[in-house]
Amino acid sequence: MEGLENCPPRNELEEALAKAKGFLPNVRLACQTIPTGEVHLRRLVIDDEDVELAKEQGANGFGKEKEVAILFSDIRGFTSFAESNLPYDVIHILNRYFKQIGEVILKNKGYIDKYIGDGIMAIFGLEDGEEANEICFQAVQSALLMLEELDKLNEYLELNFDVQFNIGIGIHFGEVIIGEIGHPLSKQVTAIGDNVNLASRIEQLTKATSVKVLLSKEVKERVQDRIKIGKSFQAKIKGKTGLYHIFEALSLK
Amino acid sequence: MEGLENCPPRNELEEALAKAKGFLPNVRLACQTIPTGEVHLRRLVIDDEDVELAKEQGANGFGKEKEVAILFSDIRGFTSFAESNLPYDVIHILNRYFKQIGEVILKNKGYIDKYIGDGIMAIFGLEDGEEANEICFQAVQSALLMLEELDKLNEYLELNFDVQFNIGIGIHFGEVIIGEIGHPLSKQVTAIGDNVNLASRIEQLTKATSVKVLLSKEVKERVQDRIKIGKSFQAKIKGKTGLYHIFEALSLK
Repeated sequence: MEGLENCPPRNELEEALAKAKGFLPNVRLACQTIPTGEVHLRRLVIDDEDVELAKEQGANGFGKEKEVAILFSDIRGFTSFAESNLPYDVIHILNRYFKQIGEVILKNKGYIDKYIGDGIMAIFGLEDGEEANEICFQAVQSALLMLEELDKLNEYLELNFDVQFNIGIGIHFGEVIIGEIGHPLSKQVTAIGDNVNLASRIEQLTKATSVKVLLSKEVKERVQDRIKIGKSFQAKIKGKTGLYHIFEALSLK
Repeated sequence: MEGLENCPPRNELEEALAKAKGFLPNVRLACQTIPTGEVHLRRLVIDDEDVELAKEQGANGFGKEKEVAILFSDIRGFTSFAESNLPYDVIHILNRYFKQIGEVILKNKGYIDKYIGDGIMAIFGLEDGEEANEICFQAVQSALLMLEELDKLNEYLELNFDVQFNIGIGIHFGEVIIGEIGHPLSKQVTAIGDNVNLASRIEQLTKATSVKVLLSKEVKERVQDRIKIGKSFQAKIKGKTGLYHIFEALSLK
């Protein structure tokens, strides 16, 4: 607890309990204390399981709210490629693709959150102090560069496998909860919340709209000075009432 | 290349090229060689990018086909819990849940493939030499134990947050491609293929059917001696023609 100076001294009742339980001075009973100014609290752990978890959690483990850009991408038709080619080739092509795409994301200050089959989820803006406009631009620029990398990969695929891939990319900007989650043996930093789901659903709309890169209006507003916007759509999005406005990103201005 | 003894000696044309290019004895021209028995080949790398990737790939990186059980689970209503609670609590609860669920999966020889928000993807049968029936049983047993762990968590949630979670679990068994994929800095072993997508879609059907654990018929056939099967459903599954038969897992027999 910070702000102890804004709490009055313990009353008789609290003092008795504090003595009996051996509370440190920074443990106060909320029911007996009326603060006179700002006080920062830490939640008390409740059972042994909580105690153990709290010990295991590092500095990243505690969860904080943050405005970030979330990018989802997916390869169209990869599953049928996987079904009709050798496992060696499937993994090799996927790794070649992820290496090129990954470089683009890392160079634009993005964090590769996870791979989901042939899909990728990336987060922009994890570091503190970055501006929303800049975060969104980094994400959209990554998407446009990913398309360039895909063009290169497609030359190779056409030559060696007589096939080309298309990708769909969806980007949204909003508040999420960032934390380190998972079983203690396999934790990873990730983003949680409705805005993550929304980004994923915008990516899925690239199929129906046949557009390569789709932005939410929250992203579009922050990049329109630097990015050429193409078509716009009104789409129904699961879990959202009414229609949701999404925009095609075409190229750098 | 293994099985060189099953290839006839180089003919004149091949000999000339082999000399000019400095081929080792185990590099043969497929167009000039008619094998008389079994021969194992390794694909030639094509460009510098391929060479670099091949160097980076470890023993797991090459991709192999394997029959595994794939388990997907998801918490119903977690997003609204996340929206209305403190980030600290959201991450804490998620970690408490993943720790308990993760233990169950690991104890049943499962591999935690990834966390997707509040969801988890696990693979059973990654080790060689396990029987299909046993692999499927481990996966279904994990699912049933996950429900027990959830009951414990729900007592804690009810007490502290006045909320309870439901989960939906889908399990499928089939051939996938196993490999280590991703950008060189963030690779992970995962499963790729249509059977992974099918497992995920079976999990999604738990919502419409209000069933906690759903099995594909490939799993059901392999566990029905040891698992009590409840309702069965005919469902339409995206990417599959006709109706697909799925089954509720109730308890151990």
